[in-house]
Amino acid sequence: MNYKVILQEIYNESEKLATLGKITSSIPELGKVDPDKFGIHLTTIAGEDFGIGDSEEKFSIQSISKALTVALAFSFLDEKIWERVGVEPSGSAFNSLVQLEYEKGIPRNPFINAGAIVIADILVTHLKNPKQDFLNFIRMICGSPKIDFNLKVAQSEKDTRFRNAALANFLKSFGNIHNDVDEVLDFYFHQCAIEMTCKELAHSFFFFANEGKTKAGVPILTKSQVKRLNALMQSCGFYDESGEFTYKVGLPGKSGIGGGIAALYPKNFVVATWSPRLNQKGNSELGMNALELLTTKTEMSIF
Amino acid sequence: MNYKVILQEIYNESEKLATLGKITSSIPELGKVDPDKFGIHLTTIAGEDFGIGDSEEKFSIQSISKALTVALAFSFLDEKIWERVGVEPSGSAFNSLVQLEYEKGIPRNPFINAGAIVIADILVTHLKNPKQDFLNFIRMICGSPKIDFNLKVAQSEKDTRFRNAALANFLKSFGNIHNDVDEVLDFYFHQCAIEMTCKELAHSFFFFANEGKTKAGVPILTKSQVKRLNALMQSCGFYDESGEFTYKVGLPGKSGIGGGIAALYPKNFVVATWSPRLNQKGNSELGMNALELLTTKTEMSIF
Amino acid sequence: MNYKVILQEIYNESEKLATLGKITSSIPELGKVDPDKFGIHLTTIAGEDFGIGDSEEKFSIQSISKALTVALAFSFLDEKIWERVGVEPSGSAFNSLVQLEYEKGIPRNPFINAGAIVIADILVTHLKNPKQDFLNFIRMICGSPKIDFNLKVAQSEKDTRFRNAALANFLKSFGNIHNDVDEVLDFYFHQCAIEMTCKELAHSFFFFANEGKTKAGVPILTKSQVKRLNALMQSCGFYDESGEFTYKVGLPGKSGIGGGIAALYPKNFVVATWSPRLNQKGNSELGMNALELLTTKTEMSIF
Amino acid sequence: MNYKVILQEIYNESEKLATLGKITSSIPELGKVDPDKFGIHLTTIAGEDFGIGDSEEKFSIQSISKALTVALAFSFLDEKIWERVGVEPSGSAFNSLVQLEYEKGIPRNPFINAGAIVIADILVTHLKNPKQDFLNFIRMICGSPKIDFNLKVAQSEKDTRFRNAALANFLKSFGNIHNDVDEVLDFYFHQCAIEMTCKELAHSFFFFANEGKTKAGVPILTKSQVKRLNALMQSCGFYDESGEFTYKVGLPGKSGIGGGIAALYPKNFVVATWSPRLNQKGNSELGMNALELLTTKTEMSIF
Repeated sequence: MNYKVILQEIYNESEKLATLGKITSSIPELGKVDPDKFGIHLTTIAGEDFGIGDSEEKFSIQSISKALTVALAFSFLDEKIWERVGVEPSGSAFNSLVQLEYEKGIPRNPFINAGAIVIADILVTHLKNPKQDFLNFIRMICGSPKIDFNLKVAQSEKDTRFRNAALANFLKSFGNIHNDVDEVLDFYFHQCAIEMTCKELAHSFFFFANEGKTKAGVPILTKSQVKRLNALMQSCGFYDESGEFTYKVGLPGKSGIGGGIAALYPKNFVVATWSPRLNQKGNSELGMNALELLTTKTEMSIF
Repeated sequence: MNYKVILQEIYNESEKLATLGKITSSIPELGKVDPDKFGIHLTTIAGEDFGIGDSEEKFSIQSISKALTVALAFSFLDEKIWERVGVEPSGSAFNSLVQLEYEKGIPRNPFINAGAIVIADILVTHLKNPKQDFLNFIRMICGSPKIDFNLKVAQSEKDTRFRNAALANFLKSFGNIHNDVDEVLDFYFHQCAIEMTCKELAHSFFFFANEGKTKAGVPILTKSQVKRLNALMQSCGFYDESGEFTYKVGLPGKSGIGGGIAALYPKNFVVATWSPRLNQKGNSELGMNALELLTTKTEMSIF
Repeated sequence: MNYKVILQEIYNESEKLATLGKITSSIPELGKVDPDKFGIHLTTIAGEDFGIGDSEEKFSIQSISKALTVALAFSFLDEKIWERVGVEPSGSAFNSLVQLEYEKGIPRNPFINAGAIVIADILVTHLKNPKQDFLNFIRMICGSPKIDFNLKVAQSEKDTRFRNAALANFLKSFGNIHNDVDEVLDFYFHQCAIEMTCKELAHSFFFFANEGKTKAGVPILTKSQVKRLNALMQSCGFYDESGEFTYKVGLPGKSGIGGGIAALYPKNFVVATWSPRLNQKGNSELGMNALELLTTKTEMSIF
Repeated sequence: MNYKVILQEIYNESEKLATLGKITSSIPELGKVDPDKFGIHLTTIAGEDFGIGDSEEKFSIQSISKALTVALAFSFLDEKIWERVGVEPSGSAFNSLVQLEYEKGIPRNPFINAGAIVIADILVTHLKNPKQDFLNFIRMICGSPKIDFNLKVAQSEKDTRFRNAALANFLKSFGNIHNDVDEVLDFYFHQCAIEMTCKELAHSFFFFANEGKTKAGVPILTKSQVKRLNALMQSCGFYDESGEFTYKVGLPGKSGIGGGIAALYPKNFVVATWSPRLNQKGNSELGMNALELLTTKTEMSIF
């Protein structure tokens, strides 16, 4: 498979679509990004790297971090984690309180905001210095010390926190937050404010494609655990567009409102895209399209 | 892979769980089935057959038929089918009217009852003699003329039709049923009342695993179309337990309240199970468990 | 109180608003009515009649009939009626299925469609010749033999029945319809298709203001029963605009999509208005406004 | 009307029911109250006072305060108040977030928690020293300087604030809270923690029955404004039991989870009851019953 040529083709075809979608307006600091950035990076299971466009420029990974926090929490709690969060797609918008009310404070899955806040609470409980320890974990799985929080973004999330604060307090009212609400939110806003390049993102997700081991060979999760998280990303990784992504792309992945997407073909490759213009459901317009082209051109989807 | 040994192991381990779950009470005629029946049949992509238990006994396929009607409708309409039904998991029970109201008569996906009734309407429009033509289609993809409706079951569905009649009338009020409500329901009750053995079911689903071609080599759908339907089964095939099934089993499939499940590993195998005792979400308790054991033992899941 | 002068003032002030709102499009036959019709009739508890505008022209009373069917059903069952329908405002649109699903087939109150269909079912059970007997009841309480069904309207309701058919089947699936769905709907479509003038409507509602006795002195309900139905009309008589009507007008009443409203001040007067242009919530724009002017000018509201 | 005798009768009949219902468990400090307390106080429009039982013992008025805050806010903003909160019954539990989400942050009415928090925000904006000024207002309308906050109760509300904090943050996310969330909640917890006797409560509500003027003759609201708030209490004063209360009692009123109820018959009387045992919907079991007996015995309901 000549990934270099394929990425180039995808990049060229994407040029024509380059102005679809709008940059997020929900977090002011994110609104300052150049909306026309576009990068793709693919890393094969053999370790080969292929990048194109703005693939080595940093961006805010936002909700993509939820796949990494759940991996870390899963390594602590294994199946017990599902006592506090479900594994079903939500069928509604990513920050809906409605479902949470009907389901008595157990979020549908760890990729909607409510679920991710519960996972953040678990990490605050299990980590000694939650923010620093989590950052170290990310640097380790990525194999790069150059990953950091963007503190302006973290502050901007805090300044516009009200919906997430509503979720966290609501969860607490059901007993599903064990730590102080403000501490949990502070952790959550920082995890979302991590910055990576497409290349770093692909490397960070490498263990999902590699039966649980990082590019450097460090075991993070067991084979079986990693299959399960991949399945969960497939079901729930794209808010209420998860079915659409599964239908069109056919790979497990996770998106963020910073415009990034990480996806993977188990035992084959990891791929990360970045384009800040989002479609109506909050997923990157060009990124979704690039990944659909990738699976069409390579005929590599899991189905 | 020694499937014979593996099926035997699964069968033995299932014995211990044999009384979990309850037979459906929603359709009286189905309630007359022996709840302790249990069979598994696996057909490899090479055409080898492996069966155990009651795998050659007929049972009511019920909602499993929805995967076959959508395949036929997809062969008629291709992507235009999605103008009338979505591809997103529903996040709620299989016969919920709530979501349909919020979403103005476009069912979330073709595997919930509302969606399947829309698909039935499409087939009533496109087939000359809808019931007979659909039966012929099933016989053809299965490669067996011995498949038929159970008319007592069809009548029992009609006698207890009120919730489905509510759905069909509701869809009609939104303009998403084009034919007469009673005619569409009559077709729908018959499709659900088809009877097959596990073996016949596995053969009928063969084309989903075989890039669109039946066991006899007849092309039903294109490679790309079949990938998309497999993705859809993965996202939505198990009502509001689709995430759980994806998480635990990691194969696309479809269940029915008659206790059957059909699942597949693309380019590898098709498997069908039957055990009438259902869990709280309406899926076969033993069947779900058998498939989880199968992917654990074979380490063959798509993730 | 000089009602003649007051009605004239209201009529004059209404002229300025005469083109607000739109005639209903939900039932084709009702769409043929002249949208500019406007009439008011007030009958005092002493029996004096005051009419203005098109107050002696027939129109389709539609949902106003729900107050009369519940009165008749209440006379049969007394408090047992509340085993099958509630007394709480619905907080949502008049034909919503959502609430019905969450509340397991017990409609919130007898004035939303679902509740009225349950009441229709009760009357079908208790009346020998349901449609004729109910018509005779209406003629009796009104004191006029000249009231009849408009059969074209009844047929038009039947032709566009799908949402009501969905409700009736849904209720039946919960066991809250005892008779045949089609027979109950036929009765329901006829009750809605009754035609009256404002004057006849005011006379028909006279017993609600007169401690349970008709203008001719016939006892229909006890003092206590009539208070309770008045309270219920106050809470629930105007779909999800009941609070607004209570807030602005402060009288118990019932509206219909034919553009009619009947309202009353216990022990004082009954008033009926008709103007086919409806606001967004399905209540008569001019009628609501006329009644607000009436209570403002007379300072006669119950609060 | 011999109110003395009637209250005595009601009191005697209530003895038989004295153990129905349970004291609230939602706020620990309130759980310490003697559940068997029971008092009634009625003040006629002429100023006569009739009390029985524990009618001069202080209790936490809780949500009854919402009628007083909305009256004060209404006196500041008049009809503009309805730009931020509705006048429709909610049709769901008093602290539901679901409806708020569907209705984009405009609470259904000022008597559910979300609506009362918006009203609190309005008062925080308009009052110089919000808590003290509001307390002074209550003392003035009651005609007693002996009314105060119970600071232990206020603290207990704060300690268990999470659901209300969720509501306040959620409202803020829709832009419907203008001040700091914590400041608004602090005000809200204090207003709920006001303590009164039945007698003081009846006196405080006197202006609702007296065309807007307090017992001492001070004008608080206009005649028309007071009618409108009475109508609103009638529609929405008893959470999702408002219809039931209207149906059975037929008087405008407001309840609180401390077990108090204030109700009134315009131009006739004000009545307050207190019994801490609540029914399943959070209203005082004995209090509801006592008021039903009162309107039955006196035949004084507004309908």
